[in-house]
Amino acid sequence: MIKYPDGSTYTPSVKKRKKTKSELSFSSANRGMNLENDINLSNEYYLNKDLALITKRPTPINVAKVDYSRGARIVDAYFEKQSTTDYNGVYKGKYLDFEAKNTRSKTSFPIANISKHQIEHLKNVIHHGGIAFFIIEFQTRKEVFLLDAQFVIDFYENGDRKSIPYDIFLKEGVLLKQGYNPPIDYLPAVEKKYFH
Amino acid sequence: MIKYPDGSTYTPSVKKRKKTKSELSFSSANRGMNLENDINLSNEYYLNKDLALITKRPTPINVAKVDYSRGARIVDAYFEKQSTTDYNGVYKGKYLDFEAKNTRSKTSFPIANISKHQIEHLKNVIHHGGIAFFIIEFQTRKEVFLLDAQFVIDFYENGDRKSIPYDIFLKEGVLLKQGYNPPIDYLPAVEKKYFH
Repeated sequence: MIKYPDGSTYTPSVKKRKKTKSELSFSSANRGMNLENDINLSNEYYLNKDLALITKRPTPINVAKVDYSRGARIVDAYFEKQSTTDYNGVYKGKYLDFEAKNTRSKTSFPIANISKHQIEHLKNVIHHGGIAFFIIEFQTRKEVFLLDAQFVIDFYENGDRKSIPYDIFLKEGVLLKQGYNPPIDYLPAVEKKYFH
Repeated sequence: MIKYPDGSTYTPSVKKRKKTKSELSFSSANRGMNLENDINLSNEYYLNKDLALITKRPTPINVAKVDYSRGARIVDAYFEKQSTTDYNGVYKGKYLDFEAKNTRSKTSFPIANISKHQIEHLKNVIHHGGIAFFIIEFQTRKEVFLLDAQFVIDFYENGDRKSIPYDIFLKEGVLLKQGYNPPIDYLPAVEKKYFH
């Protein structure tokens, strides 16, 4: 839609084509961008307030071709799946590691959203004494929870159910405070859950 | 050179052009690939032996254009500078973080190899109770040292010298054992320096 200065609008009729599978998966990735952005801003806040150092791992990209005539410009490459989690860092000397996920479902979080690699990685984190959890957003509810990774791992490995019901989040998770800055205040939940 | 099945060879005469600046910097990056590869293999060894979980952060790439008609293929992108360090992970519950660098000089390590961002990042790691160090390879000597990050930070910030002399590595650093597997055995040096 184009808005003109006089307030009138014009929507050009563009023939809509069906989205390809990769476009759909990319747009579902974009849906998660707000959560990612909110966590990045929260991490910036924690760093500036001298509370913790937590960073996002860059998205791994497999570079197939580089054009040197254009100053090492990448001309062919593709996205790879993160084999670990998106975030890790240090809080009070301890290593912490987490993955952020979201769902549009109101009633449960589908564990198919979590990859086997990420489960393996988080098991290793716990094995080596690190703190591991998930930050999971119920988008339509506008609620974000912290859920301990060991709980999710047990559910993933032993459970017969394909998703974690919302009720379990209320019982086992910590509902995170949202605000202007930090957008998602998850560090007090980490403090309470793992340091007391 | 092309090798034919009968054993004869043919080398086409290709007019060699001067390398561009970005090609030179890329080839100097490639020089560091062996060190990176050795550290990645060592990390794999430590993970398999249940000793530590240490991972390499992917190289950050800024994606300018994606071609969806080819399955979300990236057709325009460029390398970004890592604003943190290359490696972090967990060992005995503690967060550890390090950067790997190499030099062809026999007499000193030029600190211009280290970016201001990396120094800031490592200061934050130390501030939050993490373990921070450098793994520095003297390529022509085939020697690899672990050097405490605080020492390098002090040198970077207070020193008048533009490079860290080799002698200082002998005095302040830990010479790392190299072998077949792990290629660079840096974990015993971490244990000795930070856990005793």
